[in-house]
Amino acid sequence: MLIVAENINIRRAKLGKAMKEHNSEPIIELAGELKNAGADYLDINIGPATKNGPELMRWLVTSIQENVDIPLCLDTKNLEAMRAGLEVHKGKAIINSTDGSEKQLNKVMPMAKEFNTSIIGLTLDESGIPRDDNERFQIAFNIITKATEYGISPEDLYIDPILLPVSGMQNQVNYAIESIKMFNQLSDPPPKTIVGLSNISQSSPDELRSILNRICLILLSCNGLSAAISDPLDKDLMAALKTYDILTNKVLYAHSYLD
Amino acid sequence: MLIVAENINIRRAKLGKAMKEHNSEPIIELAGELKNAGADYLDINIGPATKNGPELMRWLVTSIQENVDIPLCLDTKNLEAMRAGLEVHKGKAIINSTDGSEKQLNKVMPMAKEFNTSIIGLTLDESGIPRDDNERFQIAFNIITKATEYGISPEDLYIDPILLPVSGMQNQVNYAIESIKMFNQLSDPPPKTIVGLSNISQSSPDELRSILNRICLILLSCNGLSAAISDPLDKDLMAALKTYDILTNKVLYAHSYLD
Repeated sequence: MLIVAENINIRRAKLGKAMKEHNSEPIIELAGELKNAGADYLDINIGPATKNGPELMRWLVTSIQENVDIPLCLDTKNLEAMRAGLEVHKGKAIINSTDGSEKQLNKVMPMAKEFNTSIIGLTLDESGIPRDDNERFQIAFNIITKATEYGISPEDLYIDPILLPVSGMQNQVNYAIESIKMFNQLSDPPPKTIVGLSNISQSSPDELRSILNRICLILLSCNGLSAAISDPLDKDLMAALKTYDILTNKVLYAHSYLD
Repeated sequence: MLIVAENINIRRAKLGKAMKEHNSEPIIELAGELKNAGADYLDINIGPATKNGPELMRWLVTSIQENVDIPLCLDTKNLEAMRAGLEVHKGKAIINSTDGSEKQLNKVMPMAKEFNTSIIGLTLDESGIPRDDNERFQIAFNIITKATEYGISPEDLYIDPILLPVSGMQNQVNYAIESIKMFNQLSDPPPKTIVGLSNISQSSPDELRSILNRICLILLSCNGLSAAISDPLDKDLMAALKTYDILTNKVLYAHSYLD
């Protein structure tokens, strides 16, 4: 399971302030903590970034990667900011994200090809959030077809089935699970799959969020999920994942496996 | 997921003493707690019970069921004690257990038929513990064939793939999982499946046991397990299971689902 840390987000007060003031210290400190906690990638969410987006993304990517050896998942709707970040990024970046609309795919796929990145493809399009697994599958099919047109391997795609809050749309969780199974049949090799894990517990009381997140992650893992945008500082989440890796024989058991 | 409480066991010092002295109070109290905690069945383990087995089992079944409305899973190798318990049991009992040897099956299956019980079939036989999923499947096939001969429906069978300690036999966990999937293809309707959950964490340090047990239970649930002999007083285990039931839409979500 690839863990993309969700934590570096302009919407978090302390980080938003640091980004605005170009104060890299708290961001670098957090980046180091996230890597130590088990993050494989760091999501860098600068929001819509309508003002100074390219400059902000370039500064963030450079500041973090000069201090912490970890690849980044660049998260913005501003494609100029995306390009600026990719130009200075070291290693294989992830573009977060494209949706499944023809228009967006034709903008973002060429950029993924040009910079040899991975790319997250959200299974939503002009008609909004898909109603069931079949609609998700149809959009995933469009994404993978377009990727092939641009010469991008399915292994560089992370298809996101759009996890929705269990508190409001309980039956959608099963659709997301069924979608992941279907995506794994889409091609050979199959595309990878990813979710924004915390979505599942949006609108649930704080005391339920961690357990909903971690049991959901195990459930999705069992059904073939490859990656999760999630919080590696949630110790219970990471302990659950490590235990899953032990039980499924992905990591050798030792009495100290949680230390 | 059917929860068979593992707690009423003659090997536990306090309970062993109470059984010996025919002091029903602590046993009835525990039985009530287990039911309140979510147990669907109570396993009643009196061990080999070579002395006074029938009398002990009869007393236990009667004492518990006169005070707590719950069916029991009678757990002894002493078949006279088993029969004595079944004679006084109210509701549908579970026989725990038969192995897959011809000799044992021919002794226990008629009893299951006579008393219209469910029965746990362990996938081990004269050659000992099976080495992989194929050996488990072969034994399960023998059990289900014998059940059919005696007119017992697959739905009254709980096939146990024999969960082994992850600390010593890590690769066996995958065999157990694959076995459960295979058992679910054995017949239509398929037999039920069951594990002795705590086996997974035998020989692991105490602080790891609960997390190994609960993540294992979720993993097995995802792969089609029907029942677990486990500890409903482990609150983290039951919270994980309730969360799983919410996420898989088996139980309607409410913010209070863990209360």
